[in-house]
Amino acid sequence: MDLRLASLGHGNVGRAVARMLADKADELLRGYDVWFRYTGLYTRSAGPEIMPEGMAPAQVVAAGLPMGDRLTGGSRPVSDALTFIRTCPADVVLELTTLNPQSGQPAIEHVRAALDAGKHVVTANKGPIAYAYRELRALAERQGVALRFESTVMDGTPIFSMVEASLPATVISGFRGLLNSTSNYVLDRMAKGHSLEVAIAGAQRLGVAEADPSNDLDGWDAAVKATVLANVLMGADIRPGDVAREGLGADAMRQRHGALLPGQALKQVVDAVHTVTGGVQAHVRLEALPPDDPFAHLSGNETALLLHTDTMQDLTLIEGQGDPGQTAFGVVADLVNIARGRGRDVPRPYYAV
Amino acid sequence: MDLRLASLGHGNVGRAVARMLADKADELLRGYDVWFRYTGLYTRSAGPEIMPEGMAPAQVVAAGLPMGDRLTGGSRPVSDALTFIRTCPADVVLELTTLNPQSGQPAIEHVRAALDAGKHVVTANKGPIAYAYRELRALAERQGVALRFESTVMDGTPIFSMVEASLPATVISGFRGLLNSTSNYVLDRMAKGHSLEVAIAGAQRLGVAEADPSNDLDGWDAAVKATVLANVLMGADIRPGDVAREGLGADAMRQRHGALLPGQALKQVVDAVHTVTGGVQAHVRLEALPPDDPFAHLSGNETALLLHTDTMQDLTLIEGQGDPGQTAFGVVADLVNIARGRGRDVPRPYYAV
Repeated sequence: MDLRLASLGHGNVGRAVARMLADKADELLRGYDVWFRYTGLYTRSAGPEIMPEGMAPAQVVAAGLPMGDRLTGGSRPVSDALTFIRTCPADVVLELTTLNPQSGQPAIEHVRAALDAGKHVVTANKGPIAYAYRELRALAERQGVALRFESTVMDGTPIFSMVEASLPATVISGFRGLLNSTSNYVLDRMAKGHSLEVAIAGAQRLGVAEADPSNDLDGWDAAVKATVLANVLMGADIRPGDVAREGLGADAMRQRHGALLPGQALKQVVDAVHTVTGGVQAHVRLEALPPDDPFAHLSGNETALLLHTDTMQDLTLIEGQGDPGQTAFGVVADLVNIARGRGRDVPRPYYAV
Repeated sequence: MDLRLASLGHGNVGRAVARMLADKADELLRGYDVWFRYTGLYTRSAGPEIMPEGMAPAQVVAAGLPMGDRLTGGSRPVSDALTFIRTCPADVVLELTTLNPQSGQPAIEHVRAALDAGKHVVTANKGPIAYAYRELRALAERQGVALRFESTVMDGTPIFSMVEASLPATVISGFRGLLNSTSNYVLDRMAKGHSLEVAIAGAQRLGVAEADPSNDLDGWDAAVKATVLANVLMGADIRPGDVAREGLGADAMRQRHGALLPGQALKQVVDAVHTVTGGVQAHVRLEALPPDDPFAHLSGNETALLLHTDTMQDLTLIEGQGDPGQTAFGVVADLVNIARGRGRDVPRPYYAV
């Protein structure tokens, strides 16, 4: 099977996707009978580029950006991202642009346009799933195309595809996680004796934290992820603003760190439970974990998610290291599942209300 | 889709499977368009029983054993297990008999007969996968039927279906795990101040340990599981006797426990790595884990497996509680995947040699 890709965004994650598709081309063809061609790229720097005959992932890696006249078949500029999505001769649109955590836009528009045009979508951008999952899922079902989003939480850690493939007829009644890498890293450094400022600067040097880390330290990144998990796995219909963010931020981290008892570890913890009225309440907060809590001993590079289920009881996934390579792998895994005809299978929550 | 089941063994796990199929019948029909009928049961106590018209799982739960004249269509005795497997009008044979850890028999014969007869197989018995995986997998492929075995390691924790569904084109270069519940429980109790004898007696009272716990404490159970993981996930072709079991058993546990440094935790650890010659070497041994090892803090009820991969780096699964209910769930998940036509997808190891 030949899958033609149009990628929105070609930054760290987009380039890592092309590299992995190039590196794994033989295994993907041999094991899953699928090969990939890029027929379009849309980036802020180079604008829209359509390659009607397609470029192999290895060519895309070698070409760099902007591709200009190195494009197979030549560049054909289109007026804007939505026109690009509609006109690019692609089977799958990759939404790999940067998240706007306050609105999810313009990624929601991108995904809606792609599904409207009958194209499968793989998004690593959390915005569309956090802000418009029900609508976009219904649209994908009507159109008979796939909407997959493994990389929106814990990079490519198989959360959604595991639930879909391996936890049939299962009620997920709640979850608990350490989902924000920057907070994990900074709190781990503080536990090792660094000041908050030095820990943040270290995270920035490593590329874990952004120039303004408040999105992470204030719990907004974790709230967006909690929303995705609650809406997809627990049948909720909340928005990131509905997630209770309590006692977070740099000042709280400094104060709580100073008040820890021996053996305790301070972590930014996400959780969600069903309420007595049948809704879902999600929280992000700093918790002083006792030494017998396995989450207390996760290092600064690890993220974790514990699912409470009615079939497997408690089931935990831990990601050892997350970087653009792991995010890219989630996109590749989604693409393979689309090629296998599993695109339209999304988790079906059976929740006790 | 109507799937007819013939179950070999109807003990704790077999009864839990029937109960879960009964409890989840609505969700399975609604979500996966599948319903199940038992057309045969073979137990040591009641012998072979064939119900040509089938019994709903709820009827099987209600009937108890031996079913005798309560069977729909009446009991029709057959001479032995192999004849039962060949003649029972079933789509799937469930191999739920007790493991013989030294040989894997007679379960290997059961599975071979079922596949030869063109029937899908779900086995919770580790023997056939530990001792005859390559042969049985090739036979299943020739016959165009499924051979699934999720419950052979960590109960129904989605190891094999996760690798198959969520880790495409991934090289698993090694693993590390706490896989034996009895050892975990006993060592956890010893860490809390109990003597080895008291800890073993407690495990026996809870049904975690058998009357003779040596199979667990000597590392034989873990060696069988390591063999399954190495052969399925890493492309090895080893047998349980090839797994190096080092410094195990009750005496070693007592000695090593007495020599622990403060903060260390003693655990029975399984690991496997590729050797320089392209083979796989697996070990079971007692390890004094330092306090910053997340495995050091797992409680006596938890089991865990860390996979080293080339795509997701380190990925860990932790099962919070294991009992016949979780083992049964793995069987149910395998049955659902057979109903979805995923029966013939088995993990395809791409290993670097």
